[in-house]
Amino acid sequence: MGNYISDAVIKRLPRYRRYLRNLEKSGVSRVSSKELGEMMDVTASQIRQDLNHFGGFGQQGYGYGVAELGNSLEQIMGLDKTYNIAFIGCGRLGQALIGYLNGNEPHYKIVALCDNRPELAGTEIAGIKVMDKEEFKVRMRKGDIDILALTAPARIADEVAGDLEGTGIRGVWNFGHTDITIKGVHVMNVHLSDSLHALTYYINHLD
Amino acid sequence: MGNYISDAVIKRLPRYRRYLRNLEKSGVSRVSSKELGEMMDVTASQIRQDLNHFGGFGQQGYGYGVAELGNSLEQIMGLDKTYNIAFIGCGRLGQALIGYLNGNEPHYKIVALCDNRPELAGTEIAGIKVMDKEEFKVRMRKGDIDILALTAPARIADEVAGDLEGTGIRGVWNFGHTDITIKGVHVMNVHLSDSLHALTYYINHLD
Repeated sequence: MGNYISDAVIKRLPRYRRYLRNLEKSGVSRVSSKELGEMMDVTASQIRQDLNHFGGFGQQGYGYGVAELGNSLEQIMGLDKTYNIAFIGCGRLGQALIGYLNGNEPHYKIVALCDNRPELAGTEIAGIKVMDKEEFKVRMRKGDIDILALTAPARIADEVAGDLEGTGIRGVWNFGHTDITIKGVHVMNVHLSDSLHALTYYINHLD
Repeated sequence: MGNYISDAVIKRLPRYRRYLRNLEKSGVSRVSSKELGEMMDVTASQIRQDLNHFGGFGQQGYGYGVAELGNSLEQIMGLDKTYNIAFIGCGRLGQALIGYLNGNEPHYKIVALCDNRPELAGTEIAGIKVMDKEEFKVRMRKGDIDILALTAPARIADEVAGDLEGTGIRGVWNFGHTDITIKGVHVMNVHLSDSLHALTYYINHLD
């Protein structure tokens, strides 16, 4: 597992897992790479290549065990553990994501919130107190936050993100409009408009 | 341009464009595929291959004209035109995206909103009346909506999406939790948790 695995492969894992979990819910117990590929609109050989990075799954001619492969993918991604997540930015996007995680993602526990706007700081969202920047910087030092979600304007996000060293925070889920890099931390830059722009390409090239 | 271009290539175009526009803002006028690749963490040959699908850009040894390539990518994606977009679902996620588009995406004009919740139907968001489902179904038939954003619970989204034929809607930007397929329409399924799950992989595999 120490071999280099490209970002493109890693970014496909969550989608494989979703399809497998949906198959499992529909009562399907085995699936071939060909069948899975047809559902997902990728080639069977792409699926086999991607999964080969993580060891052997499935047997030639027998396909994959749907539940087993789903479980394995969860273990590979670390979704068999639970993570503490904090949000900087509790506006509409922050609140939408907080609501989404609380309803759909039992492996992520929201433990702290930060927003400097006077109408939000000091209030509670989803039962958690919204701290202002200074209080949150102290809170970060407690060392129990795994992931920081950035759903705030760039200025405050930059300022707090510049202060992560020694907090134990290992990942940043960044919805800001500029890609950021932080030493020792993995940053996942999410650009909501990228999918809209790709969609725009497609609507101009419909068959 | 009639050749087959994979989804993976199309999904990279918005990112190339972002990087080029940022370079342009920084006053850079030419960039080599090697330099661009280093910034974007992809190989130079990947960039050349991707762009070759759309004709010849740049000259061996001279690199790409930053502004020109940015313009070309916008034309390829159709970002030189303007699109009318409607939202089904005006909760927190819908409102976050509406605010984001209004502030950052001049080529998308929000023309209609739908939400059946009594506290929202009949109100205005960003100056646009929120219609209930029945009123919105009539509004769709006016024929001027290009893209439908689905930011609503699956049930209402399914019901309205089942009624798109003849409306002229060509694209669906789907934030629902289940992938959907609609004949004659391009659906871009967005899964906000996929990026969080990929991030989770990475925080478990930090160097």
